[in-house]
Amino acid sequence: MLTYSFADIGSDALYHHLYQCIRDDILCGKLPAEFKLPSKRSFAKNLGVSNITVENAYAQLQAEGYIYSVAKKGYYVTEISCFAQPAGSRTENLPGQEMALKKYIADFVSNRISPQQFPFSVWSKLLRETLLNLHEELLETPPWGGVLQLRRAISQHLKEFRNMDVSAEQIIIGAGTEYLYGLLIQLLGRDKIYAVEDPGYHKISSIYEANGVQCCFIPVNKRGIDLKRLQASSCHVVHISPSHHFPTGIVTPISKRYELLGWAVGQEGRYIIEDDYDSEFRLAGKPIPTLQSIDRSERVIYMNTFTKTLASTIRISYMVLPQPLLEEFEKRLSFYSCTVSNFEQYVLAQFIEEGYFEKHINRMRTHYRRVRDEVVQAVRKSALATCCEITEEDAGLHFLLRIDTKLPDEELLQRADKAGIRLSALTEYYGNPTNDAPAHTFVVNYSGLSEAEIPNVVKLLTECILGQG
Amino acid sequence: MLTYSFADIGSDALYHHLYQCIRDDILCGKLPAEFKLPSKRSFAKNLGVSNITVENAYAQLQAEGYIYSVAKKGYYVTEISCFAQPAGSRTENLPGQEMALKKYIADFVSNRISPQQFPFSVWSKLLRETLLNLHEELLETPPWGGVLQLRRAISQHLKEFRNMDVSAEQIIIGAGTEYLYGLLIQLLGRDKIYAVEDPGYHKISSIYEANGVQCCFIPVNKRGIDLKRLQASSCHVVHISPSHHFPTGIVTPISKRYELLGWAVGQEGRYIIEDDYDSEFRLAGKPIPTLQSIDRSERVIYMNTFTKTLASTIRISYMVLPQPLLEEFEKRLSFYSCTVSNFEQYVLAQFIEEGYFEKHINRMRTHYRRVRDEVVQAVRKSALATCCEITEEDAGLHFLLRIDTKLPDEELLQRADKAGIRLSALTEYYGNPTNDAPAHTFVVNYSGLSEAEIPNVVKLLTECILGQG
Repeated sequence: MLTYSFADIGSDALYHHLYQCIRDDILCGKLPAEFKLPSKRSFAKNLGVSNITVENAYAQLQAEGYIYSVAKKGYYVTEISCFAQPAGSRTENLPGQEMALKKYIADFVSNRISPQQFPFSVWSKLLRETLLNLHEELLETPPWGGVLQLRRAISQHLKEFRNMDVSAEQIIIGAGTEYLYGLLIQLLGRDKIYAVEDPGYHKISSIYEANGVQCCFIPVNKRGIDLKRLQASSCHVVHISPSHHFPTGIVTPISKRYELLGWAVGQEGRYIIEDDYDSEFRLAGKPIPTLQSIDRSERVIYMNTFTKTLASTIRISYMVLPQPLLEEFEKRLSFYSCTVSNFEQYVLAQFIEEGYFEKHINRMRTHYRRVRDEVVQAVRKSALATCCEITEEDAGLHFLLRIDTKLPDEELLQRADKAGIRLSALTEYYGNPTNDAPAHTFVVNYSGLSEAEIPNVVKLLTECILGQG
Repeated sequence: MLTYSFADIGSDALYHHLYQCIRDDILCGKLPAEFKLPSKRSFAKNLGVSNITVENAYAQLQAEGYIYSVAKKGYYVTEISCFAQPAGSRTENLPGQEMALKKYIADFVSNRISPQQFPFSVWSKLLRETLLNLHEELLETPPWGGVLQLRRAISQHLKEFRNMDVSAEQIIIGAGTEYLYGLLIQLLGRDKIYAVEDPGYHKISSIYEANGVQCCFIPVNKRGIDLKRLQASSCHVVHISPSHHFPTGIVTPISKRYELLGWAVGQEGRYIIEDDYDSEFRLAGKPIPTLQSIDRSERVIYMNTFTKTLASTIRISYMVLPQPLLEEFEKRLSFYSCTVSNFEQYVLAQFIEEGYFEKHINRMRTHYRRVRDEVVQAVRKSALATCCEITEEDAGLHFLLRIDTKLPDEELLQRADKAGIRLSALTEYYGNPTNDAPAHTFVVNYSGLSEAEIPNVVKLLTECILGQG
């Protein structure tokens, strides 16, 4: 008869130990298919354990399908089609994935906020209060568009700061604009052709591609996206950032905005996705009216995000759907759960309602203006001054640096990288090679810089470009 | 000459008031296209304001495209292709969207956790510590798969509780499994056919449909998904929950698991998505080995979520990719930012590392077992006892209640709804009408019930079903 030792089994339950022994023997083939197991009673007697122990072990083996019972006959080992190979640690063989990101002395590519700038104490206070007072609400499944209190706060914010008249119901909260783009593709249709700005923000076209929808690069001129090219294309949806084009910083003038609305109404099913991603950080003048606020034809989908204004690691964005699309969304896509945690939705709602968001934006704007001024001044005082030009420095968080050089962009970028400076060239943001990309122009995102490090960073940059050091 | 009043402008800057007056006149058509504006100097004199005021107003109008300047000539109103209609409040006309969800006396459909069960004090403590100590980390963009510390904690947890040998690198964090399914479609391909269990969790097929991929309903039998039907189909990817099928509660036996792995290796490009969504709450016996842990062919994608174990309003789920798919993901999809906030990733990491998660699961399991026992007992003591059967009560958070009745399901559901009880019929979970759905069987999810309310709720339910009251 089968025999197993019950010595040294530690705190393991007897039945579980027995279960494991039999299971292992089945898996390694020692107990072949159709093998008849001993009767519970005689097995128990033989092993010196209680009947219950054997019974529990058999029950577990049976529940997991290792054995089966035949009425009035007993227990048999199941036929298992392919036996397991001996388990080895698979993790050891993994090619080392690059988990840690390279540390740069200065990163002119990412949007970052330094710990000194994030409102940690207010955020902590609101979190503490929320966790104390909103137990029920925190655990209540929110409507598909997100927590209503947050959507009301955003609606009020949009009224005050963008003069937009949207109801809380039209606002859909999501874990980042990237996620919301994915939803929009499902809403507007996979058969549509999506126009994106060229140059533009890489990720947008990547998302369209990853979702298998056709995406078309339309050049940008001094007034924003080229309308003639858009009209000549067969695109149905155009994705633009009229308040502040990335990376050129171009602001689409109001007349052009009306022309774009004209394009949208020109054909059934045309839509404009208005990405207002960092309009809060316009450093000069008043913000320009959004397309959404002057649209009377319900063709504009407005999007904005707190990942730029608050922190890129808090993933909260939103979109404002015109009424017909909202109804369509409810019908087809409202089965999706909201992707943002209630905890952060409630904290953000209070952060906005209690005026902290406005204060934070004002503080950040002042901070960024100061950083920008210092960077621009440092460049102008440096040896670069005579061979470079800075443009579009009024529109949030980055400017363009055109350098008078014979060196190829690639060479300059490599030198910068070697020196610990992460920089990107304007050419990198072009998707269509036939659209003329200006060379020797670099995108300088200064959002992650502290004032103290500016002199050193600009010195390093100068050395890279001029080839000293 | 143009004249505007500067009385009653409150705290508005003079230039901004002037800008608004002119802009409004342009928008309403009072100042037509090509209208020449007064020279700055004479306009300033006329209005009794400084030159700077007019200059700033013109600059703002020009920046926004309302006017343009011609060198040495002056400023002209831009041609705007379609004039705005008078703005009315659009929010008032919105058809009232159902924002508040209906309140039920008992909800047997949703997965919920009551505030008494959520570990608020520990979560608060960890949040406070995180916000105090991890300023840099909280604002640092995490790798595309998520915060490494959390992925390490999950890897350790999987080793201890599921005997799974996966590296932190293989784990990808996302804001809910719904979001991760969307990523998987992008990873595995839109041209693939996806098999889902019938009956099954609605949302899975909804997500495949919303993403425009072909989805096929394969019936479930007593050993899990019907393998013959799967083999006969032309499906490439099968989506299953072998540890605990929803809603029938069926556990796929080990022999069937090997057969499924055999199916996967039978053809290039076949994959199994193993949804292990509430394996932590198996109320009897030991958990069964996952497909992932016995897979040697790298065809299993393991998924699990904290939305069931912690709270459905904290949106954190993860998937474990086999190495070749991980490399493919990195190549094509790693441009996506992680959708979960760093703040919650770090808190959850510590929650797991410091043993709170294990304690929480144990506590919840005990709690759910008690609630289940009381619900089952209350039903067995009620007038329902003679005309109902309870099955699959050992597998987490719900059981099936088959009722011996002549009333159609629809009628029973309506009665329950009227009485304030949210209930669902097993038939509702079937996608293919040709797959025989057993009538008069209801899915009873008891996770949101407190012990105190059980007698009353079961009484209500009995009255509904037996038609009294």
